[in-house]
Amino acid sequence: MADDWATFGADLHLELRGPGLRDGLMNALREAVRGGRLTAGTRLPSSRQLAADLGVARNTVADAYAELVAEGWLTARQGSGTRVARRSAPRPAPRRVRPEGPAAPPRPRPGKPTYNLRPGTPDLASFPRADWLKAARKALTNAPHEAFGYGDPQGRTEMRTVLAEYLARARGVHAAPERIVLCSGFVHGLMLMGQVLKARGVAEVAVESYGLDIHWDLIRRAGIRMPALPTGEHGTRTEELGGIGYADVGAVLMTPAHQFPTGGALQPDRRAAAVDWARAGGGLILEDDYDGEFRYDRQPVGALQGLDPERVVYLGTASKSLAPGLRLAWMVLPEDLVDEVVAAKGKVDWVSSATDQLTFAEFLASGAYDRHVRAMRLRYRRRRDQLVAAVAERSPTTRISGIAAGLHAVLELPEGTEESVLRSAAFQGLALLGINRFRHPDTPRTRDALVVGYGTPPDSAWSGALEALCRVLP
Amino acid sequence: MADDWATFGADLHLELRGPGLRDGLMNALREAVRGGRLTAGTRLPSSRQLAADLGVARNTVADAYAELVAEGWLTARQGSGTRVARRSAPRPAPRRVRPEGPAAPPRPRPGKPTYNLRPGTPDLASFPRADWLKAARKALTNAPHEAFGYGDPQGRTEMRTVLAEYLARARGVHAAPERIVLCSGFVHGLMLMGQVLKARGVAEVAVESYGLDIHWDLIRRAGIRMPALPTGEHGTRTEELGGIGYADVGAVLMTPAHQFPTGGALQPDRRAAAVDWARAGGGLILEDDYDGEFRYDRQPVGALQGLDPERVVYLGTASKSLAPGLRLAWMVLPEDLVDEVVAAKGKVDWVSSATDQLTFAEFLASGAYDRHVRAMRLRYRRRRDQLVAAVAERSPTTRISGIAAGLHAVLELPEGTEESVLRSAAFQGLALLGINRFRHPDTPRTRDALVVGYGTPPDSAWSGALEALCRVLP
Repeated sequence: MADDWATFGADLHLELRGPGLRDGLMNALREAVRGGRLTAGTRLPSSRQLAADLGVARNTVADAYAELVAEGWLTARQGSGTRVARRSAPRPAPRRVRPEGPAAPPRPRPGKPTYNLRPGTPDLASFPRADWLKAARKALTNAPHEAFGYGDPQGRTEMRTVLAEYLARARGVHAAPERIVLCSGFVHGLMLMGQVLKARGVAEVAVESYGLDIHWDLIRRAGIRMPALPTGEHGTRTEELGGIGYADVGAVLMTPAHQFPTGGALQPDRRAAAVDWARAGGGLILEDDYDGEFRYDRQPVGALQGLDPERVVYLGTASKSLAPGLRLAWMVLPEDLVDEVVAAKGKVDWVSSATDQLTFAEFLASGAYDRHVRAMRLRYRRRRDQLVAAVAERSPTTRISGIAAGLHAVLELPEGTEESVLRSAAFQGLALLGINRFRHPDTPRTRDALVVGYGTPPDSAWSGALEALCRVLP
Repeated sequence: MADDWATFGADLHLELRGPGLRDGLMNALREAVRGGRLTAGTRLPSSRQLAADLGVARNTVADAYAELVAEGWLTARQGSGTRVARRSAPRPAPRRVRPEGPAAPPRPRPGKPTYNLRPGTPDLASFPRADWLKAARKALTNAPHEAFGYGDPQGRTEMRTVLAEYLARARGVHAAPERIVLCSGFVHGLMLMGQVLKARGVAEVAVESYGLDIHWDLIRRAGIRMPALPTGEHGTRTEELGGIGYADVGAVLMTPAHQFPTGGALQPDRRAAAVDWARAGGGLILEDDYDGEFRYDRQPVGALQGLDPERVVYLGTASKSLAPGLRLAWMVLPEDLVDEVVAAKGKVDWVSSATDQLTFAEFLASGAYDRHVRAMRLRYRRRRDQLVAAVAERSPTTRISGIAAGLHAVLELPEGTEESVLRSAAFQGLALLGINRFRHPDTPRTRDALVVGYGTPPDSAWSGALEALCRVLP
């Protein structure tokens, strides 16, 4: 019998030195079973034999055998020695190769656009790494031990306290720390609201006739219908709420400060109409304030929430002002919704990282957030001005709108040309989106336009992106 | 008319100096409307009058009026001046005071336990802040810009690459980066699996007869029934899978390395039985490896997943090895599940912070994670030994089990005494949980015991907690 095993150790391709010998032996045995070289029922050499064969201590082999018995790979029966467990060999697990090869750094691929003017992402090259790290050091050094445990589902107190002060100051939000619930992004907040509204028996949530399908999908998945309110140049027609076609609407999802993507601010009378509707029938307004900090030619329009904190759910985010990768966002809730939203979120915070919350609180309290927003506002305004000037010079017939605020502008196109302009852009390596990409399914097609995210490219790519854009304009 | 307004400025309690005058005026006007001092329809003084009254530039007042018109607080009509918008005054938003006063630092309250031996949380005082910050600095300094954008729903490549290597080395997991999906904790992973299993038509997921109700709730909420497999001293009776009462089971949720909370490792033949069942009928095993790194007297028992990577979903977490506050966990999936789980998670990563992922990847790659786990293993083992010694001395009739691994032990109690021991502990300021807190609703009560989380207290509280425990034992 010993002879059968004389080369067993060599077969296992073992590295016979160093402290990892037992682990190496275990891995080699696991691989041999998995790969079918050792089949079920096969008797292994005794630990004494294998140890001699490998030139290692007998205990090393005995330990490895014992562990593999505990894990179910081997069996050890009195009088029958150690054998491979009698189970069919598992199929070998092929390494799953995805088209983009996620383990390798991304390489330029044929067809990958050179320039990106899609809306929705801020300039990631401007993320304030040094200031963020400075805030992280201070926050993590000073945090109490319990901060690293399971947290309050509303979010860390440190963060909610400074956030309430900031939102009141910068966005006119009537906020208090105990009304704030942290979430991992607007999408998470909307998902929670979908659950709460469904549980409250809301059958329909009205949305704007242009918006993001990922948001609509969340509402739909909560089992709620989703009629569209017409959105034109002067904002969304909130005066239609409660009228024909909107009788079952229990809440409305809106972007009052800067309609996404058409770009206007909701007119004062329409702000009032939304609040009046909400008060009259117990409705709720979900205010998506995704880029409220960025307004260029005058003071930002304050949040609608300030008009009636008991009828408006304010949703804000650090995704545009800092970076989407932080997954930090917040809701300021009417008092009677706090418990329901917290219950939907869970008994403890299963989602948001304490380290980022603590760091953000310090970043905000230290004034670094305000400085960053101011610097980015100047940078984006400069880009906006360059965009406006370039279009005026190179394509004087193209009308630009939605330029007072935010990180994107709308460039009107001649009727029926949106698709051909997008194709031409793609051909030139410029990633662009048309406005009909954002059209609600119930909304008729009435315009052709580009939604140009001028915040997206890093500084180094900006002038190239602008040039590429001008080339595809009429 | 001007006379009516002579004291208007003073009424607004304005700070009349500094750059924030316009903001201050706007806030004061908002508050006056909100609080009912200015009622709907009230005509405001002209900007010229108010500016003179306040001794400020007229433009400051005009700008503030214009902004408040844009926000919907005021209206401006030709010939009618500026008036408070005709809407019913909002109810003032009371500051919501929760019993625990979240804005204030936590204070000792009457009845708040002095010592905490509840299981489930590691020693938070040992979180390696300095090493974590060091890793954060390196990771954030070196990260590509795109790391701060919307991320891959599977998680950052950097993290999955080092994690695959680590899990293979330390837990015997057959892992590859493209099989890993990051999640924000075991709860998030289980929620995703609930959705996927429900969509696959799985009607029942078997669970162990002792476990966590928050996990069971997630399965139930996915619309899946949840029969319990009996769990005794030698682990969970996986041999009953497929038998009477378990015919509709499509998956089983288990803690093979260290049953929670009863503390045993799943016996080899029961590991084999679970895998055989899964292979025979296309079932899945959900392996909750919550504290697999902590085994004290011998090598950790390798993950069950290694036995068949195509039939086992491996779920691991940094919540016990580092800290729950990080919200970092991972799934290693059978190949044919990756796309379904990613689809359930979303098109981009809506959940997990890029900064923490990058930092964890660096922390792991640098060897700091291994060092931390080794240090904590020694620390927890010392506590375990002290617990065993103290109980042997002070309560020799009390049997301890589940001590080979993990952060908790089970102390058997005489029949019918669990509640009275818990009451006595609470009375002495010691937070404790009994084993029946973890009993599945279908499981008959057969034992009385304490589940003692010896990892929970900080070092400074450990000997006091141990002493308090000994006092309540029979």
